[in-house]
Amino acid sequence: MAIQQHKVILDESEMPTRWYNLLADLPTPPPPPLHPGTGQPVGPDDLTPIFPMDLIAQEVTTERYVDIPEEVQEVYRLWRPSPLYRAHRLEKALGTPARIYYKYEGVSPAGSHKPNTAVPQAYYNAKAGIKKLTSETGAGQWGTSLAFACAQFGLECEIWQVRASYDGKPYRKIMIETFGATIHPSPSDLTDAGRAVLATNPDSPGSLGLAISEAVEVAAQDPDANYALGSVLNHVLLHQTIIGEEALLQLAKIGETADLIVGCTGGGSNFGGLTFPFIREKLAAGGAGPIIRAVEPASCPSLTQGVYAYDFGDVAGLTPLLKMHTLGHDFMPDPIHAGGLRYHGMSPIISHLYEEGMIEAVAKTQKDCFAAGVLFAQTEGILPAPESTHAIAAAVDAANAATAAGDQTCIVIALSGHGHVDMMAYDAYLRGGLVDHTWADTELQESVAKALTRLPEIANS
Amino acid sequence: MAIQQHKVILDESEMPTRWYNLLADLPTPPPPPLHPGTGQPVGPDDLTPIFPMDLIAQEVTTERYVDIPEEVQEVYRLWRPSPLYRAHRLEKALGTPARIYYKYEGVSPAGSHKPNTAVPQAYYNAKAGIKKLTSETGAGQWGTSLAFACAQFGLECEIWQVRASYDGKPYRKIMIETFGATIHPSPSDLTDAGRAVLATNPDSPGSLGLAISEAVEVAAQDPDANYALGSVLNHVLLHQTIIGEEALLQLAKIGETADLIVGCTGGGSNFGGLTFPFIREKLAAGGAGPIIRAVEPASCPSLTQGVYAYDFGDVAGLTPLLKMHTLGHDFMPDPIHAGGLRYHGMSPIISHLYEEGMIEAVAKTQKDCFAAGVLFAQTEGILPAPESTHAIAAAVDAANAATAAGDQTCIVIALSGHGHVDMMAYDAYLRGGLVDHTWADTELQESVAKALTRLPEIANS
Repeated sequence: MAIQQHKVILDESEMPTRWYNLLADLPTPPPPPLHPGTGQPVGPDDLTPIFPMDLIAQEVTTERYVDIPEEVQEVYRLWRPSPLYRAHRLEKALGTPARIYYKYEGVSPAGSHKPNTAVPQAYYNAKAGIKKLTSETGAGQWGTSLAFACAQFGLECEIWQVRASYDGKPYRKIMIETFGATIHPSPSDLTDAGRAVLATNPDSPGSLGLAISEAVEVAAQDPDANYALGSVLNHVLLHQTIIGEEALLQLAKIGETADLIVGCTGGGSNFGGLTFPFIREKLAAGGAGPIIRAVEPASCPSLTQGVYAYDFGDVAGLTPLLKMHTLGHDFMPDPIHAGGLRYHGMSPIISHLYEEGMIEAVAKTQKDCFAAGVLFAQTEGILPAPESTHAIAAAVDAANAATAAGDQTCIVIALSGHGHVDMMAYDAYLRGGLVDHTWADTELQESVAKALTRLPEIANS
Repeated sequence: MAIQQHKVILDESEMPTRWYNLLADLPTPPPPPLHPGTGQPVGPDDLTPIFPMDLIAQEVTTERYVDIPEEVQEVYRLWRPSPLYRAHRLEKALGTPARIYYKYEGVSPAGSHKPNTAVPQAYYNAKAGIKKLTSETGAGQWGTSLAFACAQFGLECEIWQVRASYDGKPYRKIMIETFGATIHPSPSDLTDAGRAVLATNPDSPGSLGLAISEAVEVAAQDPDANYALGSVLNHVLLHQTIIGEEALLQLAKIGETADLIVGCTGGGSNFGGLTFPFIREKLAAGGAGPIIRAVEPASCPSLTQGVYAYDFGDVAGLTPLLKMHTLGHDFMPDPIHAGGLRYHGMSPIISHLYEEGMIEAVAKTQKDCFAAGVLFAQTEGILPAPESTHAIAAAVDAANAATAAGDQTCIVIALSGHGHVDMMAYDAYLRGGLVDHTWADTELQESVAKALTRLPEIANS
């Protein structure tokens, strides 16, 4: 029996030392963020209350590459380069001629791709003399990542976690505290935004948009504090491109070329991180290259069912207006277990790519996703995060199509993280306790339609 | 700034293809297991009701090396070779001249070293025509590992989990089910052993020894079923030696030599797995080589406070009698959060090494261990299992001693796994809710003394 190599490993010395900025290569630029009061493009001055200048510069840069500071590389090397795996056992279980690979970000301190941006964000803030970072977290991946990153650069870290997760999923909260951060349930009585919600609904389960409002409010009022966002913005996706740069090197190492890349999309940072370098190569090759497919939850289908319009990133309307695919900033998705995909909007760059026809999108229901996740665990030995199961489910669909066509497609999965602290979601699935929501549900359509009536008029008139 | 290499990685092609059998090199052999009825050494016939012949042969072999079957290697390659890390950031936080490395087994499907033996045990049983494996699990590491391993070879898997963990720590139970196994709380009404306990104490929280009794009983009565043990026995420690074989290659790769190896000991399989190949080298060098130090919990101190005597491996007395360090087979340790270290006995080989003065042992209290674990998480980005924090705490002690002496000691930590599903223990620590038990506690001493009065007389007369 010949050895079937499972892992494609890069040495630390092979780790990319630059992030890639897709904006430099796009045929048309995405529309700029607007100031909600004036309707005019936001400038650096609008952002300095909550971001350091280095990150503001990265948000708008048109340079093709941005050097990764040595101090950030040093922390990255705790877990990077991350492995690319060939899914031999999954292929065998599916009986498919397709070759399936997965780029696995679950090896990071937080168990997902999020530290790729948390670390540089903490670094640039510390460099600017900031003493504390605030942020929100939903299921807890981002909060864990920022807590870890702040510990590396001696920053305080204060996190608002959506109350439903704070109460129901204590493991992430404890991880965040173990990494040294302070954590509050949102809504909290520490902010105007939180108090306003508590006044009308003391039992509010909270939402990601509201938690953002609370964290931004505290950062904006404290000159020693800044805010950090875990997805959506250009500089966040920039930092994540190290995933795709590594994957290109890894595929080249084994003489392999991707035909299809699938990744889950909540705000889009894992998806963008893996795919942007591949889009660069595709643009350079005149469009020849892999199909790139975003996979979103059917219960929160911002790409496939949302509108492309200016909207707020948060519930309270404190953020700049972003041109993006959105379900409306006060859309509250039904509880689905992939908390990281439960966001009303989508990264402006990814929304733009979708509008331009440069990427595809599909929506998957959660039972199909967990079924794929269980198969993946039993064959590959990794318990995927509920978010990541969306990408796996789409890969299984593609592999089955390849089997039917007798086609030796090469599929690359963006495996964003492990599900070790999401086991209650697997429990619900295994006991038949999950409910699938699809766009055919009148209730979901009505809920989105209602939220979309509250898009900010100034920017969309 | 020069690159500080953090990981020492072996390619899959460099993975060792043989396990190492320390018994072949020991100056004196450990005393044999005895049949509890006759007091005579057990033979293969005594073991065939619950083990396949290949494993029985490995239990008693005097061959120095045992080839790892290709089918087992193929599954190992899902996560092996496991990484050896240099703990640069921990060293810096401690301000020590010591060089600290850790061999990390948390990258496995179960998040610990346990799959190293679960996989070959499932393989040899499947090869022997067995259809089902039964076993016990405490905190759940072993049950998860066996569930995963059985899924690789098409075996059914039935697990009895100590009820206190089954009720209180549901994440591991769900992992076990996700990997496809069936799981029951122990005591259960499915066995004589379980029913006997339930009759006198319907609310019994169970114990590892009792769960073993239940799993052995079911396997012994079903000709298509066998039993699998996750620690203690010779063949289990044999399978774990791949850890140490890899670590020797990794240290050689960077021209490094260990001065001290520390590992936590419950049944001893992670500790033995890392250290036995180093002991081989030390014996070959006439005793020159690293100090080898076992670290056990102060509340369950089998090496430092137990007696060296024949005892049962389980509560009901179904196992052969093993000559080992023991606190008495019905000793019930106070609840400590490192569930994997909560066992009354110790591997016969490791007990023998301790008696012969070839290894050292220390007992650590759990608050010190969690303090070391939090420091490790914040510096190295890995949340260690509560068991593993014992090894880290001993390494921190040694590093501090090296600092005081100005000594550039090279310390290697056996980091048995991650603590992602043990966060409630960290929560208890962070909120000041942990109680330390030491041998100075009269209650602990009395409890051990009482259990030791019930050692089986036939073997110790």
